[in-house]
Amino acid sequence: MSAEVEELLKRFQALKNVIGIVVVDNDGIPIKTTLEYNLTLHYVALMQTLREKARQVVQDLDATNEFTFLRLRTLLHEVMLCPQDDYFIMVLQNPCD
Amino acid sequence: MSAEVEELLKRFQALKNVIGIVVVDNDGIPIKTTLEYNLTLHYVALMQTLREKARQVVQDLDATNEFTFLRLRTLLHEVMLCPQDDYFIMVLQNPCD
Repeated sequence: MSAEVEELLKRFQALKNVIGIVVVDNDGIPIKTTLEYNLTLHYVALMQTLREKARQVVQDLDATNEFTFLRLRTLLHEVMLCPQDDYFIMVLQNPCD
Repeated sequence: MSAEVEELLKRFQALKNVIGIVVVDNDGIPIKTTLEYNLTLHYVALMQTLREKARQVVQDLDATNEFTFLRLRTLLHEVMLCPQDDYFIMVLQNPCD
């Protein structure tokens, strides 16, 4: 993995609310994770579908546009998806106040 | 529409980056919009599918959990979805810095 990704991971891990980080390549393979393995696979499978839906929705509204970031807040935690060219980063955190 | 919704709308409209607000009932009917009619219908149709996907993903991870807020950032603008019991609010805004 590139030094750029390692740098991003360090920055996310330093944030006090962050409880998990997963990096997924474009084939859907988790190439880095701080979550337990089965939980990683569960999150990756579901977040891939959400990422794809977000991409479709944005492109359908304007084919020149691209989705760059998604934040999903739930009662229990927040999930952030940051798509990059060759991979995407998923960050799981406790809700901020 | 309830006074609560009207109050929420006023608060959103006062935000300087906000360029559109749509309130959609649980049958998918836009009951309030500040966007042009056809654009409203296009956004509502697509955002309903994104909202449903987000709901499914959250419930699949933990059936006791609920999605409470979604923010989608794109190259051109941001969309926020705020689900409520009887309706959901969609806010379209220029990206914040």
